[in-house]
Amino acid sequence: MKTNIAILGSATTKFGEHWKLSLLDLAHLAADEALQDAELTTEDIDAVFVSNMLSGRLQHQDHLGAAVVAELGIKKPGLKVEGACASGGLAVHTAIQSLLAGTYETVLVIGVEKMTDFEASEISAALMGAGAEEERAAGLTFPGLYALMAKAHMQQYGTTREHMANVAVKNHYHASLNKKAQFPYEVSLEKVLASAKLTDPLTLLDSSPITDGAAALILRKVKQNSPKSNKKTVFITASSVAMDTLRLAERDSFAELAATQVAAKKAFAQAGIEHGDVAIMEVHDCFTIAEIMAMEDLGFCKKGEGGDYILSGETRLGGKRPVNTSGGLKACGHPVGATGVKQIVEIRDQLLGRGGEKQVKGAKVGLTQNVGGIGATVVVHILQL
Amino acid sequence: MKTNIAILGSATTKFGEHWKLSLLDLAHLAADEALQDAELTTEDIDAVFVSNMLSGRLQHQDHLGAAVVAELGIKKPGLKVEGACASGGLAVHTAIQSLLAGTYETVLVIGVEKMTDFEASEISAALMGAGAEEERAAGLTFPGLYALMAKAHMQQYGTTREHMANVAVKNHYHASLNKKAQFPYEVSLEKVLASAKLTDPLTLLDSSPITDGAAALILRKVKQNSPKSNKKTVFITASSVAMDTLRLAERDSFAELAATQVAAKKAFAQAGIEHGDVAIMEVHDCFTIAEIMAMEDLGFCKKGEGGDYILSGETRLGGKRPVNTSGGLKACGHPVGATGVKQIVEIRDQLLGRGGEKQVKGAKVGLTQNVGGIGATVVVHILQL
Repeated sequence: MKTNIAILGSATTKFGEHWKLSLLDLAHLAADEALQDAELTTEDIDAVFVSNMLSGRLQHQDHLGAAVVAELGIKKPGLKVEGACASGGLAVHTAIQSLLAGTYETVLVIGVEKMTDFEASEISAALMGAGAEEERAAGLTFPGLYALMAKAHMQQYGTTREHMANVAVKNHYHASLNKKAQFPYEVSLEKVLASAKLTDPLTLLDSSPITDGAAALILRKVKQNSPKSNKKTVFITASSVAMDTLRLAERDSFAELAATQVAAKKAFAQAGIEHGDVAIMEVHDCFTIAEIMAMEDLGFCKKGEGGDYILSGETRLGGKRPVNTSGGLKACGHPVGATGVKQIVEIRDQLLGRGGEKQVKGAKVGLTQNVGGIGATVVVHILQL
Repeated sequence: MKTNIAILGSATTKFGEHWKLSLLDLAHLAADEALQDAELTTEDIDAVFVSNMLSGRLQHQDHLGAAVVAELGIKKPGLKVEGACASGGLAVHTAIQSLLAGTYETVLVIGVEKMTDFEASEISAALMGAGAEEERAAGLTFPGLYALMAKAHMQQYGTTREHMANVAVKNHYHASLNKKAQFPYEVSLEKVLASAKLTDPLTLLDSSPITDGAAALILRKVKQNSPKSNKKTVFITASSVAMDTLRLAERDSFAELAATQVAAKKAFAQAGIEHGDVAIMEVHDCFTIAEIMAMEDLGFCKKGEGGDYILSGETRLGGKRPVNTSGGLKACGHPVGATGVKQIVEIRDQLLGRGGEKQVKGAKVGLTQNVGGIGATVVVHILQL
């Protein structure tokens, strides 16, 4: 079913290290800017959906919906949606349900995470909360899990280290044009290839960072017969969720995210569009190999050809279908609960023509892919002008 | 808007200490029993909404929707809803939105928490995740916060220790008739009054315990014109959420939960019923004073008269309007993420006449009140036969 959910406002904070701002400060900043963008006040908001993964463990806050609503000084229903790194996509999906149901008219979605105040070992352990108990017990980490997938992809399809490094080069180039990015600078192919090895074959510069940041959206279901205003409006026309096994060991293939394939198929059917219609995408490049697999699993190239597809330049700014113009998780940053929301903020900015230096010309349709863990959860949204 | 959400199946595990069962085992047990009750299989389920507060901190699982869906061996959308001790009510509220939206036809809600494997000090600290940062920093605990409310209620309305202890006596009596209860035995008024003081004026036996347990519901939106079957069906006819400040210090009064008043008002309007119609309730008696305030704030007696109202016997089994026939959080147990779901399971059992030894005769309408923290979140559901 094609939805008619309008995005009235959107914003992100700067992504990076915010040592002087709390988790709630970040949420508040993004919410205020989104409200301003929508020319609305908190009075207009009927419910707040907060996306976050680690507030319980890191900030000792397990009542985050109430905490955010209190921080905003309103007394409207608020709740937290959690699905590891896919929390953002899931919160948007959940918020949309309440609008389609007619229970709430205008809702605020806030994705937020604050990660840089902690030791790397603590964050690394915390992030394995997205995985399975058996994987944690075996000593696996997320770089380790994605390295297993990269190895499989290399063996099965001949994907190379250069293919992967090229994703980082492209996304850092995009980030260099994005003032909100955590790493707004370019990196060379040589530098990526020569950077410290984390888990073979992945290097430090194949990996997304930990980040503090927040993103916010204001959504409203628009009546079919409402008079058209002169203002351009971006709609969310599809919101789909698909799942896979939590454990990598239980998958048929290590070289794909099957849930991406299922979620994409559902989303294209919902929106009633074809792949050819999509002009721009934000995908979940937590590691460079993930963006290569995303291109294939979303159906924009054949399986195994993701590396070459990206190498062709088609997904670089100036190419036919730019991917991760924000810089992606890789270079814009990855505050986990915020990521799925921020992807939608970036696509909306592009469709409205306010993408700044990284603006893609004439884009009318965009897609986001948000992944939890190693693809146990995948959320796909389609946005249309 | 009156909803037409049918409960097709429901179940809870035994509440108590389950040292041989994991968090996922408990979720699985409750889900299987609810499916059996509904005469459905996992194939019939379109999405799973998991309610839980502390899996990240206690079980290191921050991708709980995916973990539960994988445990059940299905690949349907799954996500976790968190709102401290109101997580259960919020998950039901959220699941209902997806049904009203028409996105999913049949959904499974699972509330689950596993708490007894941990040191009391660890759990006590973890539970303060439901409160505000300033309260944690000040050394406040939940018994401390509710003790402040109890003191205010005593000073303002003349509520006595006996009024509070009487709530424990009633709920333990109900639990003595409930095979699923954590403490299925009676306690005397003298025993409650003489039990160890936790935070003046509350004693150990004024307080709900920590508990392992799970509860599950299968919900479906029923078409208005669907043919009536011979089977009795319980409907959720109202689902409302209201919020208050996270910090107790910011409240106008310490002797009430204003969010309960707002959520109840909305719920009665939604269902189109009056207080007189309600034959049975499950309310959030995390401490005995909370049940006294619930009677008042839900509007079943005047403000300040909750203690006498309960003392009158009207809310005891055999009385006009029994409250917490399960034994409540106090004596049936309080696995936080499961509580809001289990309240609905108990009311449905009663309305269907399968309440066992604790059956209330002829009840047609029931109400649940689920509280997060000290009432920053309150969720009210109304169920009708």
